[in-house]
Amino acid sequence: MQKAIAELEKKGTAAKAASRKLARLSTEVKNKALLSIAQSLTSREGEILEANKLDCDEARASGMDEAMLDRLLLTSARLQGMAQDAGTVAALPDPVGEGFDARVLPNGLHIERRRVPLGVIGIIYESRPNVTVDISTLCLKSGNAVILRGGKEALRSNAALVRVIKDAIKEAGVPEDAVQFIESTERALVGEMLKMKDVIDLIIPRGGEGLVRVVTENALMPVLASGVGVCHTYVDQSADLDKAVAIAYNAKVQRPTVCNALDCLLVHSGVARHFLPMVAGEWAKAGVEMHCDQRALKVLKPISGLKLAPASKGDWGKEFLALIAAVKVVDSLDAAVEHITRYGSGHSEAIVTEDYSAAMRFLDEVDSACVYVNASTRFTDGGQFGLGAEVGISTQKFHARGPMGLKELTTYKWVIMGSGQVRA
Amino acid sequence: MQKAIAELEKKGTAAKAASRKLARLSTEVKNKALLSIAQSLTSREGEILEANKLDCDEARASGMDEAMLDRLLLTSARLQGMAQDAGTVAALPDPVGEGFDARVLPNGLHIERRRVPLGVIGIIYESRPNVTVDISTLCLKSGNAVILRGGKEALRSNAALVRVIKDAIKEAGVPEDAVQFIESTERALVGEMLKMKDVIDLIIPRGGEGLVRVVTENALMPVLASGVGVCHTYVDQSADLDKAVAIAYNAKVQRPTVCNALDCLLVHSGVARHFLPMVAGEWAKAGVEMHCDQRALKVLKPISGLKLAPASKGDWGKEFLALIAAVKVVDSLDAAVEHITRYGSGHSEAIVTEDYSAAMRFLDEVDSACVYVNASTRFTDGGQFGLGAEVGISTQKFHARGPMGLKELTTYKWVIMGSGQVRA
Repeated sequence: MQKAIAELEKKGTAAKAASRKLARLSTEVKNKALLSIAQSLTSREGEILEANKLDCDEARASGMDEAMLDRLLLTSARLQGMAQDAGTVAALPDPVGEGFDARVLPNGLHIERRRVPLGVIGIIYESRPNVTVDISTLCLKSGNAVILRGGKEALRSNAALVRVIKDAIKEAGVPEDAVQFIESTERALVGEMLKMKDVIDLIIPRGGEGLVRVVTENALMPVLASGVGVCHTYVDQSADLDKAVAIAYNAKVQRPTVCNALDCLLVHSGVARHFLPMVAGEWAKAGVEMHCDQRALKVLKPISGLKLAPASKGDWGKEFLALIAAVKVVDSLDAAVEHITRYGSGHSEAIVTEDYSAAMRFLDEVDSACVYVNASTRFTDGGQFGLGAEVGISTQKFHARGPMGLKELTTYKWVIMGSGQVRA
Repeated sequence: MQKAIAELEKKGTAAKAASRKLARLSTEVKNKALLSIAQSLTSREGEILEANKLDCDEARASGMDEAMLDRLLLTSARLQGMAQDAGTVAALPDPVGEGFDARVLPNGLHIERRRVPLGVIGIIYESRPNVTVDISTLCLKSGNAVILRGGKEALRSNAALVRVIKDAIKEAGVPEDAVQFIESTERALVGEMLKMKDVIDLIIPRGGEGLVRVVTENALMPVLASGVGVCHTYVDQSADLDKAVAIAYNAKVQRPTVCNALDCLLVHSGVARHFLPMVAGEWAKAGVEMHCDQRALKVLKPISGLKLAPASKGDWGKEFLALIAAVKVVDSLDAAVEHITRYGSGHSEAIVTEDYSAAMRFLDEVDSACVYVNASTRFTDGGQFGLGAEVGISTQKFHARGPMGLKELTTYKWVIMGSGQVRA
């Protein structure tokens, strides 16, 4: 363990030193490095897939389930996809160097805020090895060094990917120390990493609730929690019910395993009798299971072919990540907002309504990262929002909220140019 | 203690509920509340000064030194100053509601980021009771509720000020629960406060290094550390030496007890022999003590009338907050940047130079909140930078850097308006 800590510290120091060089690299050089990564991911496919095979074999032998195994698996096609993504990041505008709020003060001082990288970003993530490439390319493009701490089960895959990345960026003139990978799988090392506030400027946990909690509770540096999405869609009394069905269907069914999928459908009592059978019929075709409150159950019970269950207390505020939805009848917009305030995770919520005032009130009163009128919450995504790439979806309010792109991996410095000014 | 915790929780819940109302208050109503506070600070002067007298008497009896006593003391003139400041905040533009990055996506979704309050801001501060009014007015204007935890020695003063504030805002139609004050002085209560991440959206420690460290290490919610300023001024080989003297003099002498004052003067060896006597002569008139490295000492020792001492290791990276400066001769801009990188606190640093490339390199390579060419670091201040008011000066990189105004007490939400869009 002492050895692992010493190595961690050494890597931290190297990353910090590299971050200073990285902050001043031209966009040209950074893009060259990204394209070099893209190329190497396919040209060195053999060694990556070989390493991945060892990880997968071991995981299978240890009884990992198929869904998890699939997340761990790399294929030629997946590497090509990752290479393509690296190319996409290269094509994005470089946020570094942008000046804003520039002005001349009455005393003649020229002042502006100038966008600069954060410095060193630490990331602690679970099984998916594509995160290694994703985060490395996003950090490089935004001028940040990165310290990667991946999951034990993907150790060989991640190590191979990092080898490829380091070689590729070095060739392009970027210091290879800009990407650091923690090889030791000692659990206690995470604790050490979370103390390195003089080295790591921001730590991002990517994984389940448990990981996010450990990091939030123990990190001495700022944490960017891209957390759980408990997403609500509220169908108002004045909703266009066809739109409402389409939106609820899309939000629940299009990709149920992700954070922006619908978890809870709130329906105004004035339209529940009419609307609930409509949406239940469509959902049933996709196999959605509905966990209903008493009033919703009363409406739906007579209908055959539905997967119904009475909602338990734990269904409110639950992120299902599956074809399950909690369903509740409410008597007013106020009641809907109250439910969301109490049970939401501050991710994404939608109202379906044709009532202008109800729409405006929902946008104002629901305090989530993304608030929608008449659209599916599935749009909460950096790509969909036009950010080009996505580092994660923040459910905290500090620094960044909702989908985070390259800009959210930067900060600013105040640049003041004078001609001898002193303060009176 | 159990009782104090219960009360803290009750106040937290009340603040959270009030924050939701506060977020939707019009600028008009918020300004009315601020002007009402301003008026009450003078009209209820009697009860405030009476409470303050009890605090001061007790502090004096317990042996508090004069400087601290002066910080604790309220007078009629100081209350008038605080009232004036509240008026100034009322006159500032309201950051809440501003829309930015607005656009229409290819699928027809209207999307924008909309500025909203953070929610509930916790503040833990030491003796100066004016912070109570300062922070309350800034939080109210930016639509945030606030939970105040002041120093024990100012308990009665703060309680009186909060009473006045609550009455004043209530009269203006702002929920009085928006301002909460922790009366219990139990030390352990701070620990409890730092765990309330579901209630407090941001915690700001305002005080010495010890307080900032305790809060940073224990808070589960985001922390805004407005910390220590170890400020450097580097006099380059090509500096205009008269400008350099004026800048170094101003940065050290104009107000030595604040965070943006000069702590360390770095002088290029090419001009040290000429420049050091110039600046030392001026500084000597103001009584500045110079803690010099060997080379600076060699130049200055022959000159009489100076307060000189050989620099000890602890002088580098020290915030003096007094008429003392560390002085070092360096051989290059690189050496200056290296020294700043190693010993600076990321607050404010200046270069004095007539060399264009040296100026640009300094701005690029020094990673501090505020970087200056040919100006005094004393300008690092929300008022001076044109922010109108100052919440603090952030030395962290996350969320806000350098002087923070009202805008830095806000976040944003993504507002998406559709007409039935679903994701393909």
